[in-house]
Amino acid sequence: MMQPSILESMERKSFADMHCSVAQCLEVVGEWWSMLIVRDAMLGVTRFDQFQERLGISRNILKQRLENLTDHGVLEKVPYSDHPPRHEYRLTAKGQDLGPVVTTMRQWGDKYAAPDGPPIQPVHEGCGAVFNAEMTCSNCGERVPASEVRVVSGPGDLDRLLDISGKHSPKSKAPTNAE
Amino acid sequence: MMQPSILESMERKSFADMHCSVAQCLEVVGEWWSMLIVRDAMLGVTRFDQFQERLGISRNILKQRLENLTDHGVLEKVPYSDHPPRHEYRLTAKGQDLGPVVTTMRQWGDKYAAPDGPPIQPVHEGCGAVFNAEMTCSNCGERVPASEVRVVSGPGDLDRLLDISGKHSPKSKAPTNAE
Repeated sequence: MMQPSILESMERKSFADMHCSVAQCLEVVGEWWSMLIVRDAMLGVTRFDQFQERLGISRNILKQRLENLTDHGVLEKVPYSDHPPRHEYRLTAKGQDLGPVVTTMRQWGDKYAAPDGPPIQPVHEGCGAVFNAEMTCSNCGERVPASEVRVVSGPGDLDRLLDISGKHSPKSKAPTNAE
Repeated sequence: MMQPSILESMERKSFADMHCSVAQCLEVVGEWWSMLIVRDAMLGVTRFDQFQERLGISRNILKQRLENLTDHGVLEKVPYSDHPPRHEYRLTAKGQDLGPVVTTMRQWGDKYAAPDGPPIQPVHEGCGAVFNAEMTCSNCGERVPASEVRVVSGPGDLDRLLDISGKHSPKSKAPTNAE
């Protein structure tokens, strides 16, 4: 893992203006550590010291991340003591809806980077089995392999994401992509 | 979006040693920009200049990200010209397997951060409909809402991820979590 340079930090602009839902998701959870905070919240972690202990990051960074996730409505602060005043962090419905993102990341990591076997296994309480989550079509209910998906522009495609030639097509100028 | 501080950069350690498949996935694609490069590769972008034009980042950062994704086996460099020597970047099978991660991020962004409607819509060629990907159980085939999933430790749970009390349970010391 490369360490970020000052240049990289300067390059780390907001994705908020991009008309892409992947970028919008990254805008909320794409900061280093944020997805692991969401993971821990899904495992039942609620308190600042628990997060800090498990993640091993500084209190300042954790505080920033928790505030950012709270500002975006992924977590909410819930008081659990009045004297002294204390609160914990709980996933909102919006935060719980990140479950499929965590699940697909976990399954990819299980497949490619878990030499000792999967660290965590999900059990489907409906049938009692350890399972993989599979993607099926909301219309016909069939499994959908990637080879059977094509994408089309939707109403919010203001950045013309499918126009992959871009303004400066490689055809229109000398190639400089031999890095 | 907060700008990273020097302290934060120092905190941005590798996730490679964590025994968690979500962390392992982040180790590969968790760097700022990497998931958008993967997204673009899935849309058919292959050439350096195309990525650079679409993402609007510096050539240095893009070069680092492409090298990192190539080193991790997500992309591969494929020559397309001998004179002059030129290559493009293509997703490997490992990279294509990130499709569900991109899909679930996109669907979350569509739901919570697409005021103009979804930028991109997937069509299931099997049935011809625009669809949402739903999570179903690989064992019984039923849809699996998050409320029907519990997690258990697997063979690779060397960090005892499910032990959320941690070494320093909040019960065992004075609370300091009122940030």
